[in-house]
Amino acid sequence: MQLSEINALLPFLLRRENVARYEDGVVIMCDRRKYPFEKVFHRCDDVECAARAIEDMVTQGGGPQYVGLYAMVMLARQVADQPASKQREVFETARQRLVKTRPTNTSMARHLEKAVKVMFTALDEDQSVEEKLLVWIEHLRDLSYEKHLKCGEYGASLISDGDGILTMCFAETSFLMTLTIAKQQGKRMQVYTPETRPYLQGARLTAPSIHEIGVPVKIITDNMPAHVISEGRIQKYFTAADLVTLDGHVVNKIGTFQNTLAAHHHGVPYFVFTQAADKQKPNRASIEIEARDPGEIKSCRGTPTTIPEIDAYYPAFDITPPEFVAGVITQHGILSPYDLARYFS
Amino acid sequence: MQLSEINALLPFLLRRENVARYEDGVVIMCDRRKYPFEKVFHRCDDVECAARAIEDMVTQGGGPQYVGLYAMVMLARQVADQPASKQREVFETARQRLVKTRPTNTSMARHLEKAVKVMFTALDEDQSVEEKLLVWIEHLRDLSYEKHLKCGEYGASLISDGDGILTMCFAETSFLMTLTIAKQQGKRMQVYTPETRPYLQGARLTAPSIHEIGVPVKIITDNMPAHVISEGRIQKYFTAADLVTLDGHVVNKIGTFQNTLAAHHHGVPYFVFTQAADKQKPNRASIEIEARDPGEIKSCRGTPTTIPEIDAYYPAFDITPPEFVAGVITQHGILSPYDLARYFS
Repeated sequence: MQLSEINALLPFLLRRENVARYEDGVVIMCDRRKYPFEKVFHRCDDVECAARAIEDMVTQGGGPQYVGLYAMVMLARQVADQPASKQREVFETARQRLVKTRPTNTSMARHLEKAVKVMFTALDEDQSVEEKLLVWIEHLRDLSYEKHLKCGEYGASLISDGDGILTMCFAETSFLMTLTIAKQQGKRMQVYTPETRPYLQGARLTAPSIHEIGVPVKIITDNMPAHVISEGRIQKYFTAADLVTLDGHVVNKIGTFQNTLAAHHHGVPYFVFTQAADKQKPNRASIEIEARDPGEIKSCRGTPTTIPEIDAYYPAFDITPPEFVAGVITQHGILSPYDLARYFS
Repeated sequence: MQLSEINALLPFLLRRENVARYEDGVVIMCDRRKYPFEKVFHRCDDVECAARAIEDMVTQGGGPQYVGLYAMVMLARQVADQPASKQREVFETARQRLVKTRPTNTSMARHLEKAVKVMFTALDEDQSVEEKLLVWIEHLRDLSYEKHLKCGEYGASLISDGDGILTMCFAETSFLMTLTIAKQQGKRMQVYTPETRPYLQGARLTAPSIHEIGVPVKIITDNMPAHVISEGRIQKYFTAADLVTLDGHVVNKIGTFQNTLAAHHHGVPYFVFTQAADKQKPNRASIEIEARDPGEIKSCRGTPTTIPEIDAYYPAFDITPPEFVAGVITQHGILSPYDLARYFS
């Protein structure tokens, strides 16, 4: 398959222009809080708006990185008339604001750091920062989709005809490419997707996206994976990752870990997609787990699930140790979680 | 503690008269679908209404057994003028209808069978079936609360000062007695209760009940137990059971099993409360898991969680094998799951 064909094959949510785009000084993203009930777009014309969109989960998963990068493009246009030293200061302040939005996913942080270098270089060379950064981002996205396609091919190679597949949260482009390619290969599949409370990524994003590409999918609640596995319905478990450490710890939406315990107990292999292990994150101790507002636990799409006086706790991610990871699917192949340093350090 | 003191110590939901009661030909139960947002009572004046109340989960957990039994009392009054042979036929038809409502919890089925015997004996002896059955039920409830109190004492003996406690679904009277007694013993505790989708027993029934007796409680979503355990926050895991087989398999609300896998992985013991192992259920193969309407997965308190075209799957219970059960808490003590036949066959 060619890169040019990929976008058209992806479901609505994952098409490049719907994840995030930059148009004439404005950052535009599909509003994932409202999907699939409404397909509406959220527009930001300053960095603070973009930062809040990330914090409030207007976008999530693979979205924040590009929303953050395009916000820097937007900012470059806004301050283009100011002295270079002032621009440098403003860019650095914006980078820090954006990095703070979601502490666990460090890919955005790494790419914002690189983006600022690109911006500083453009200033040094007296070029348009807006144009130069935009070209750099679009090239980055091309490379990213190429990696997704490779991951999709490796992922599809793991699927057998008739497989039951468990996922968690919204495993994004590599997973949807995996299903698309496996389907093209004539393999029949049944996907089970936990609803992923409190934000319902599984019920709202994953299930409709899989349904859209014509693969059978059933939602279950987050308390069901072990039972569904015990019934023999699951042969493979796939997720994305918000972060993979160099020593093979997988950080992903909370629930991923307990599903790996259940999969491991029943002999079902767990595979994780990532574009790169994070060379700045050597091990478990270097991970920061985002704690979100406990109030978010106490409602479901705006409907209260309990009374106000009840307390709650909301860690947003969990950590799966390498002993429960059968393979890390990257553009380099299906790697052992114990061999990542060779590829990514 | 004396039996007469227990009822006043229990939270609203578990007080004897609120679980279910019989008043002048009507069965009355607290509507657990509306709790804690509203404290309203549901009234039934025929068997079909009671059966539907159980199916629709107006009552659940420990409620259906008494709603079913009181429905038989109500029926006895309604057919008291008919010939004994006709009454026998009507009682047997009603028993079958009630047993069919929830196939997994066999305690209701066993007690309805005994109730019909009491009714037939009353007919044989030309006594008032209504009165005789009502006396039998109230005695059964006295015995049941005595067992709960014993279970509460054994449960409290397992709790150490400062323990973090995980539960699942609504572990009812034995668990609430455990917390009440442990609190009286001066032990500090922090309970974590998964919300228990789709019906939200944890968020709606368990958390408010624990809060009511003055024990600190936090709700989490059903995808969080393993992570919360991995953080070292949990020292004991307690649930009730819808059914315990003679060979130590625990059937309880779905999610119980995957929490036991997480607890076991982290060295946290799992204890289950039951009034009796079921001597008619020798092993795993004898268990019937209730499959409920998948549509119930696709909303949360009436709010849709996905779009109508998405499919779902809803097994309501799961099975925890004895190797993950540290102790079965009964009126006979904290039993090994491998020693139940000695007490209950």
